[in-house]
Amino acid sequence: MKLLKDKILKDGKVINESILKVDSFLNHQIDGQLMKEIALEFKRRFENENITKVLTIEASGIAIAVMTSMAMDVPMLFAKKKVPSTMDTSIYTTKVFSFTKNIEYDICVAKEFLSPNDKVLVVDDFLANGHAALGLANLVKQSGAELVGIGIVVEKGFQNGRQLIEEQNIKLESLAIIKDLKNNKINLK
Amino acid sequence: MKLLKDKILKDGKVINESILKVDSFLNHQIDGQLMKEIALEFKRRFENENITKVLTIEASGIAIAVMTSMAMDVPMLFAKKKVPSTMDTSIYTTKVFSFTKNIEYDICVAKEFLSPNDKVLVVDDFLANGHAALGLANLVKQSGAELVGIGIVVEKGFQNGRQLIEEQNIKLESLAIIKDLKNNKINLK
Repeated sequence: MKLLKDKILKDGKVINESILKVDSFLNHQIDGQLMKEIALEFKRRFENENITKVLTIEASGIAIAVMTSMAMDVPMLFAKKKVPSTMDTSIYTTKVFSFTKNIEYDICVAKEFLSPNDKVLVVDDFLANGHAALGLANLVKQSGAELVGIGIVVEKGFQNGRQLIEEQNIKLESLAIIKDLKNNKINLK
Repeated sequence: MKLLKDKILKDGKVINESILKVDSFLNHQIDGQLMKEIALEFKRRFENENITKVLTIEASGIAIAVMTSMAMDVPMLFAKKKVPSTMDTSIYTTKVFSFTKNIEYDICVAKEFLSPNDKVLVVDDFLANGHAALGLANLVKQSGAELVGIGIVVEKGFQNGRQLIEEQNIKLESLAIIKDLKNNKINLK
């Protein structure tokens, strides 16, 4: 996806060999036009899959997921990182380890919004070690819904997220893949 | 806004006299078509204001803000509740007390995304005691940008958020106002 790749090369900032900062357009300030193009690209890549729901995790996945769900004309659902006081016990939950924050946390969705009739697309802004994406896949599995695939905006190709996802025979589509961030340079595949 | 009010009356669930659960369409599962209508209504209510940026706070505000920013053709920005490791020290920050969660937390935005040239619209899903909205207003003030107003999807009219905001001469537009939640019933203004 050329527009995205150009944006990453132009505005991405290399923090170190494993961290790329894209907060001017993807996960702090958000470029709506880019989100729209990302949504259309996910729609194209998962066409004819009869997706009924787009699932992501708060917070950075939400803008991507809502635009994608609009493009597909289905509802979107975002997993929460804390169980809100207004959520009763009818939830699916799993544990996710965040390497960025070095903590393990619970994620959850209300059972009423995922059913065995659903065909679910998981989307997120980044794929690194795959823990967040696989946590979402686990919630889908618990519900009995079908996981159609995982759509990622920026994949860190030098980490093992793709391997872990493909080992579970889950379709993975990344719109941009970073080969490495060596020598303070963004090297895209 | 009739579509929103109908949705609240049809799908909102009264938890107690101060909490309304709307997670089937607003802050867990999200109805994209409703978001689009909400965005167009905010655009209409803040027309001719030459807004340059839409600001919200993670997580429930993001879907609303991204749709509103698309309708207005400007970028959106969401304040974070924790300072991410990729954010350096160039941030505006303020403290917000959450009555729902009974904790005080810091919110922040990167300085580079708010400037004295900006005209900012703050949006959020709920207004109760106004602490989150006023925290966002404070970040805008620190940056020297102009706060055009605050747009809220659901206002709890029986709490004092509106009073605190109007005391600061900030324009407030709420798309639905709950008069009370007495006797397990949603009473809209």
